[in-house]
Amino acid sequence: MDEGTILNDPLDGADERGVIEQKVRRHRDGRIEPALDQVGQEWPVALVFNGISHAVMMCTPRELEAFAVGFAISEGIVERGSDIRDIEVTFHRNGSALPYAQVELTIVQQAFAALKERRRALAGRTGCGVCGIESIDLLDLSPETVTDSGFLARLAPDAIARAARELPSHQALTRVTGGLHAAAWCDERGAILLAFEDVGRHNALDKLIGRLVLERIDATNGFVFLSSRASYELVRKAARVGIPMVATISAPSSLAIAIARQAGIRLLSFCREASYVEYGED
Amino acid sequence: MDEGTILNDPLDGADERGVIEQKVRRHRDGRIEPALDQVGQEWPVALVFNGISHAVMMCTPRELEAFAVGFAISEGIVERGSDIRDIEVTFHRNGSALPYAQVELTIVQQAFAALKERRRALAGRTGCGVCGIESIDLLDLSPETVTDSGFLARLAPDAIARAARELPSHQALTRVTGGLHAAAWCDERGAILLAFEDVGRHNALDKLIGRLVLERIDATNGFVFLSSRASYELVRKAARVGIPMVATISAPSSLAIAIARQAGIRLLSFCREASYVEYGED
Repeated sequence: MDEGTILNDPLDGADERGVIEQKVRRHRDGRIEPALDQVGQEWPVALVFNGISHAVMMCTPRELEAFAVGFAISEGIVERGSDIRDIEVTFHRNGSALPYAQVELTIVQQAFAALKERRRALAGRTGCGVCGIESIDLLDLSPETVTDSGFLARLAPDAIARAARELPSHQALTRVTGGLHAAAWCDERGAILLAFEDVGRHNALDKLIGRLVLERIDATNGFVFLSSRASYELVRKAARVGIPMVATISAPSSLAIAIARQAGIRLLSFCREASYVEYGED
Repeated sequence: MDEGTILNDPLDGADERGVIEQKVRRHRDGRIEPALDQVGQEWPVALVFNGISHAVMMCTPRELEAFAVGFAISEGIVERGSDIRDIEVTFHRNGSALPYAQVELTIVQQAFAALKERRRALAGRTGCGVCGIESIDLLDLSPETVTDSGFLARLAPDAIARAARELPSHQALTRVTGGLHAAAWCDERGAILLAFEDVGRHNALDKLIGRLVLERIDATNGFVFLSSRASYELVRKAARVGIPMVATISAPSSLAIAIARQAGIRLLSFCREASYVEYGED
């Protein structure tokens, strides 16, 4: 593939703002008028570990370093941030071809050996769906157990109300596009300390997890607040790093509830300023 | 894996309604009350082609025959419905273990040989993200071109308004759970002829495509109306079977717009009874 322009600095290109401008035609009550819309960027982002291509994710091309670290951790490719020695993000454009980004990670030998072993075990298999899992026997539905650090006992009664009230002010891209997902990291008062937006809710959570790891923030001492629904994979990713509580604005799935219960994660959904629903009992 | 109970008839088990009942605690203005909630089912669904496990998808366990056919077509595993000789759906429960479903498809030898070849080409690679694609070079961003059958010229001016008005009456599971996605098949007047719900928007569209194929409905003579946003993969799947128009309730991504333009698919988003936005120009 012709590499075209390669930009090493994400701030160098206006295209990596997370949104692009797009000419549209607005139809309203039978009238049509041309307009300019802001649209969330969805780019192929290739993840390469020690020179070997591993996955291509569709992702909003911002915070890709955090995304790659979060992906590596939440997919179990590395155990901890210090297993990642180096990260290089490049942005590729080639004239009229669709742009893409590549993140090259250098991971410690032990993690790379385990990754190669895992890939050998899956030899000859494509994957689809649950992160490359291609048969039920390979599907691990037993999440890590989250250890109680005392966070839930310290949680303020109005923490959800506060997070729900404050989240929109952290959704700059959603405000202009009308359609990205957000993942926020909140303290025990419900104050939002970090927030990430992406066309994909899994990506937004991976960016958040990656940032926690990069900044050495204790993942057991806060909760994630997601603009989306709660699905299996989101809860599974939270369990991987020991996050004690997952709160979502929209509905949970049956498997999200089951996995949260197994992991010992408190799962709250339909979170609003005045109310929320707590799942957990059978 | 112990197979436990095997049910061959999805109507035999109450668990495959698409929703389960769940005890919850509702928190409102500081008060807590126990309640029963309806939650959308998310099950691992294993797809097996000619005896070889191919993928596990997280899916609402309804309409799995249509889902498997739609997946096989929209992922390019088979070219047409007649390439699929047999489909068998089984539901598996094993006491306290999490339930799952399996769909075994028998496909014609030519398609199976191509699938094996594709899998051999990917030997030693896991996949993640865009349906098992693990490097940018393997990513095909060139969709099929949709041939104009004259459908768009016949489209009624109020077709979007009608589809938007009628969709909620086809979302029985969303009504009780508050959180599933829907994919509907509409004619040129915007009348909804088929509708499918699922925890995943891609699954809902695959179920729709599968049903079109199973019923030998002309995919070039209607449009899909989706409760979700428009992403790359949804437009790509529509292109695969020649659907001339994709209309969504929420926002599109930049790549959805680019792929729709390449494919010659009309893309409408933010579809409401009184208005919508048309994408397509540069």
